[in-house]
Amino acid sequence: MSTVSSATATSASTSPTADPLPAGLAGVVVATTGLSDVRGEEGFYHYRQYSAVDLARGCSIEEVWHLLLRGHLPTADELAAFRATIRAAQVLPDAVRDSLAAVAAAGTTSPMTSLRTSLSALGGVLGLRPIWDLVDAEREHDLIRVAAQVPVLTAAAWRRSQGQQPLAPRADLGYTANHLWMLTGIEPDERAVRAVERYLCLTVDHGFNASTFTARVIASTGADVAACVVGALGALSGPLHGGAPSRALDALDEIGSPERARSWADDQLAAGRRIMGFGHAIYRGPDPRSELLKETAQGLGGPLVELAVAAESAINAALDEVSTGRVLRANVEFYAGVVMHECSIPREMFTPTFAVSRVMGWTAHILEQGHDRKIIRPSARYAGPPPPQPVPPLAERT
Amino acid sequence: MSTVSSATATSASTSPTADPLPAGLAGVVVATTGLSDVRGEEGFYHYRQYSAVDLARGCSIEEVWHLLLRGHLPTADELAAFRATIRAAQVLPDAVRDSLAAVAAAGTTSPMTSLRTSLSALGGVLGLRPIWDLVDAEREHDLIRVAAQVPVLTAAAWRRSQGQQPLAPRADLGYTANHLWMLTGIEPDERAVRAVERYLCLTVDHGFNASTFTARVIASTGADVAACVVGALGALSGPLHGGAPSRALDALDEIGSPERARSWADDQLAAGRRIMGFGHAIYRGPDPRSELLKETAQGLGGPLVELAVAAESAINAALDEVSTGRVLRANVEFYAGVVMHECSIPREMFTPTFAVSRVMGWTAHILEQGHDRKIIRPSARYAGPPPPQPVPPLAERT
Repeated sequence: MSTVSSATATSASTSPTADPLPAGLAGVVVATTGLSDVRGEEGFYHYRQYSAVDLARGCSIEEVWHLLLRGHLPTADELAAFRATIRAAQVLPDAVRDSLAAVAAAGTTSPMTSLRTSLSALGGVLGLRPIWDLVDAEREHDLIRVAAQVPVLTAAAWRRSQGQQPLAPRADLGYTANHLWMLTGIEPDERAVRAVERYLCLTVDHGFNASTFTARVIASTGADVAACVVGALGALSGPLHGGAPSRALDALDEIGSPERARSWADDQLAAGRRIMGFGHAIYRGPDPRSELLKETAQGLGGPLVELAVAAESAINAALDEVSTGRVLRANVEFYAGVVMHECSIPREMFTPTFAVSRVMGWTAHILEQGHDRKIIRPSARYAGPPPPQPVPPLAERT
Repeated sequence: MSTVSSATATSASTSPTADPLPAGLAGVVVATTGLSDVRGEEGFYHYRQYSAVDLARGCSIEEVWHLLLRGHLPTADELAAFRATIRAAQVLPDAVRDSLAAVAAAGTTSPMTSLRTSLSALGGVLGLRPIWDLVDAEREHDLIRVAAQVPVLTAAAWRRSQGQQPLAPRADLGYTANHLWMLTGIEPDERAVRAVERYLCLTVDHGFNASTFTARVIASTGADVAACVVGALGALSGPLHGGAPSRALDALDEIGSPERARSWADDQLAAGRRIMGFGHAIYRGPDPRSELLKETAQGLGGPLVELAVAAESAINAALDEVSTGRVLRANVEFYAGVVMHECSIPREMFTPTFAVSRVMGWTAHILEQGHDRKIIRPSARYAGPPPPQPVPPLAERT
C-alpha cells in the first residue's frame, strides 16, 4: 500500500503538469475506515477486529452484516431483532413485488441488468429521501430495505425467466436458506446452506474495490441509498469485477477430466491466454477466501470438486514453470463457482449471488461515508492541445 | 490543485498508518485527460482547446458533443451526419418507449429516480454488452444510443405524470429545440432555444466532478455503458451535486421583490444559513458559467430576471460585509434556474435538464476511461480495533 500523506498532497505546488496517481489508484490511500482491511502481503483480511475467515467459519451472514453495519457482533437478543428487521424488509406487497419483477424482466437479457433496474424502481416505490436529509437510524432503515430485497428481486426475476412463479421468503428460514429457497424452490439442505453461507460471509467486503468505491462516491453527493446501490451494482456487473465468476467453471468444463488439466493449462499459457480464477491484484500468495472455499467444496464432495482440486494442482504447476517471480494461485472465483454449482445455484445467478453479500458491505460503507459531509471530487491533469484557441466558424472548418 | 507525483505515490513506504488523501480527494490528480480542464484560480474552463464560454456563445450542443466525443469540432458535413446519428438514436419503437416510460412511472415520486430506472431498463432493451468486449466505434454507438434517450425518456415520464401524452422528437428540430418541444409541447421560440442551448453547452463537462468520476470508476470495470450512466445519474441526483438546482429560484421566491433582497440576505447570514447559488468549491472569484448565464437571462428579460440581478448585487454586498477573505459569487445554479424558468422548463425538470447535457460529458469520459484497461481500486487506512480478535460464540456475547 502506498502512503501519500495528506501533508504531501496539500502542500505540494500547483503546477498543472503534475503527474497523476498510479493507474487505477492502486495502493493509493483515499480514506480512513473503521470497517475492514485487506493485508495482501500477509494473505489476511478482516471485518472490524475479526478475521473474515474466522467469521465465515463460525457465524451466520446476519451476524456478519450486523457486525459491519453496527460495529459489533450481535448478542442472541440483538440477532433475533436484527433478523426480524431483515425479514420485514424482505416482504413487499405482492403487487409491488410482481410489478418490480415485471420491470426487471422488461426486455432484459442479463440478470444483473434486471437487478439494477428493479432495485432502481424499488427506490422509487419506497420514496427514498437523500441520505443527507436523514439521521443515522433512518439511513440504516433505508439501507436494509434496499439490500434485503436483492435476493428477493433477483430470484423473482430469475424464476419468471424460467417460466416459474416467484417464491416469497419464508419466515422459518434464515437469510441464506431463503436465498436458495427463492431461487430453486427446493427445500435447502443444511450442508448446502452452510456452504453458501460461508461464501456469502467471505465476500461481504474486500477493501475499496470498484463497486464499494462507487457506492461511497455516490453517497458523498448525499443521494438516496438506492442511487448508491444501483451505481455499485453497475460496477459489480463489469467483467473485471464481479461480472464473470462462471469463467473458472467454464474452464473446468473445457478441461473435462483431471488427467487433461496439465496439458490444458500448458496450452493456455503457450497461447498467451490468462487462466481465469488464478491471480489477484492484492494477494501475492494464496487468497484466504479460496482456501476456505476449497475446504468447503471438499466437504461437499463430488466429481466436479475432484476435477477442480486436480485442475488447481496442475494449473499451479504449469504457472510455476513459466513464472517470472510472481506466484499466481487460485483466487476467490475458482472455488466459489464450484461451491455455488454444487449447491444448485445456476451459473447465471453467480454474480447476483455475489451481489447478495457484497451489498451488505456497501450498506456499511454508505453509512460510514455519510458521516464525512464532503463530496468526492478529485482533479485530473489536462494533456490535450493548449487553450484557448479561437472557435472556427462552421463554414471555415476542414 | 495538489500535485502528488506517481513517483511519490509508488515509492513511499508501505506503513499501514499512512494518512489518507484530503477529504473528498479535493485537488488530488487521479488521471490524465485530453478532454477538458477547470482552472479555478483563473475563473476559466475549457473543452479540449476551446474556452467553454466561447463554445457556448457560438456553437450548438451537437457541435460541442462532437468536439468532446470525437476530438474536433465537426465540419458542416460531419455535423449533418452526427445529427442524423443522434436523431436515429432518439427514435425507439413506440411500444418500447411507452413501456420504458411506464417503468419510469412505477411508484416514482422523483424525476431523477424515474430517469435512472428507465435508462437502466433501456440498457436491457438494447442488450448492451460490456464495453471491454467492444471496439471504440461500437462503444461510441452504445454511448450515443443511451445518452440521446435522456431527454426523450425524461420528457415522456414528465408528461405522463402531468396526465399528458408523451411527444416524439421531431426530425425538423435540433437537439435543444426537441428537448423543449418534448417537455412542453409548445413550439419553442428561437430565443428560448438559444438560451437553453447556452446552458447545455456550459454544463456538458466540468472536471472530475462526482458524477463524471462515478462514470469513470464504473467504466473501469468494463461494465456496459448503461451501468456507467445509471451510476453517474445517481451521483448527479445527490443534493450536493445536481440534485437541488431549484433552490436558488426558491430563494428568489422568498425574496419576492428587489428592495427586500438585502435584508433577506442579512437575515440568512445572521442565522448562519448558506445562501444557495453562491460560492463554488473550485472558483475563487466569478464563475464563468454564471457570467454568461446572467447575460443570457438579461437578453430574455422579464420581472424574474430583474429580481435576480438586484438580488445578486444585494447578496454580493451582504457576503462581502461578512467575508473573512474568501469572495463568494453567484455560481452556475443561480442564473441557470432563472434561464430555465424563463424558457418554460418546470422546476422539477431542472436536474433532468442538467442530465441532458452532462451525460454528453460522461460519454466522452467513459470512452477515454475505456482506453485505460485498469480497474479503479484505491486503498483505505484501517483505523478500528486491531485484528485478529477471537470470535466470541453467540452465547458468550454481552
